[in-house]
Amino acid sequence: MRPYIFVNLAMSADGKISTRERRQVKISGADDFKRVDEIKAGADAIMVGIGTVLGDDPSLTVKSPDLKAARRARGEDEHPLRVVVDSMARTPLDADILCKGEGRRIVAVSAAAQAGRVEALREKAEVVVVGEQNTDLTLLMHELAARGVGRLMVEGGGTLIWGLFRAGLVDELITYVGSIVIGGAGAPTPADGEGFAREDEFPRLELAGVERVDDGVLLRWVVKKEVHSAL
Amino acid sequence: MRPYIFVNLAMSADGKISTRERRQVKISGADDFKRVDEIKAGADAIMVGIGTVLGDDPSLTVKSPDLKAARRARGEDEHPLRVVVDSMARTPLDADILCKGEGRRIVAVSAAAQAGRVEALREKAEVVVVGEQNTDLTLLMHELAARGVGRLMVEGGGTLIWGLFRAGLVDELITYVGSIVIGGAGAPTPADGEGFAREDEFPRLELAGVERVDDGVLLRWVVKKEVHSAL
Repeated sequence: MRPYIFVNLAMSADGKISTRERRQVKISGADDFKRVDEIKAGADAIMVGIGTVLGDDPSLTVKSPDLKAARRARGEDEHPLRVVVDSMARTPLDADILCKGEGRRIVAVSAAAQAGRVEALREKAEVVVVGEQNTDLTLLMHELAARGVGRLMVEGGGTLIWGLFRAGLVDELITYVGSIVIGGAGAPTPADGEGFAREDEFPRLELAGVERVDDGVLLRWVVKKEVHSAL
Repeated sequence: MRPYIFVNLAMSADGKISTRERRQVKISGADDFKRVDEIKAGADAIMVGIGTVLGDDPSLTVKSPDLKAARRARGEDEHPLRVVVDSMARTPLDADILCKGEGRRIVAVSAAAQAGRVEALREKAEVVVVGEQNTDLTLLMHELAARGVGRLMVEGGGTLIWGLFRAGLVDELITYVGSIVIGGAGAPTPADGEGFAREDEFPRLELAGVERVDDGVLLRWVVKKEVHSAL
């Protein structure tokens, strides 16, 4: 058992999610902001990798008062469960994701994380230890399902998304393609990491939706099931 | 004076134009192949960088017999003028771009290229020397305009495209987004090189067309003129 996992991201027309210096960039506009807030409010949990926490310090909170009220009316926390994938327990104790807004947090670490850091994080979040040197994403998904997470939204970054694709854990990929060019061989992309080398390893997608939003276009891809190959 | 310059490329849903090993990958399908052949036949010249020549060895010829016949009927060569941007004159003498199909070729080198290599290339192509250490793309465009090139199609790779954007030389960016995930922090993307660091440097685009083609989507972006900033 694992949640339904959807990745949502914005990239430039040349496939970058930020600059080479990992500076966060405005890629979409007001309509897309609203859309993202809505799908976030509809998720049981929202996940990012430690690189995104250290680079952007996102709170991952729901922004709209109406959407927050609707969650409360359904008996849910105002914000979805927030999850950080953080093998070495490097999440700063004052990170916005741990401090801003009510609701539960989980930090997923590996057995290689320093015990002192893990203990400190336990003051702020539930810590789950999954995997030896790296966070085992498949195990983590089982832990989330056991905690009642049915729909999981992933916000990035590229290394986490790559890991999820490699493990066959992505059901849906939503990309907003924005009207700028960022460039840079070293700039983060939607799926970084090692990358697939052979065509038979590529996850295959089906285009489920195309829609103009703000000055760009929103593409919704559903991952075809037969190619969830493990490496 | 310079030609109207349009970039045409295919990328995966995660913004890669090939694998980390620069292996050429089938990203689009038959309909897109036909579209690319048509716009190629409608161009006066077609350009690639030396990385693409060394990695893919493309011939850049028009494939359709009808399109070739139409070009001949207009009094043109069967294939557009083929141009390689090759600062150090590394184009192999047996490269398909130099050997396959009739029509003119230009290899654009810098003054730093070895004279022996330049002389050898002159047997196969016109060689223009533009720039000291690197090919000066702006000068090259003036040379092409002087040779009657009104419409120039650029096929890649990412380093050349980055150089063109940096120099403010792109009028239109056509990206086919295909239904696969390639991944890889080191995999080539539509615009590699150094990348822009600041938002005020980003080329700004206007979405001129969105169309489903094969299993993916074709995006046509027009570059807004006011942001052709030189670095």
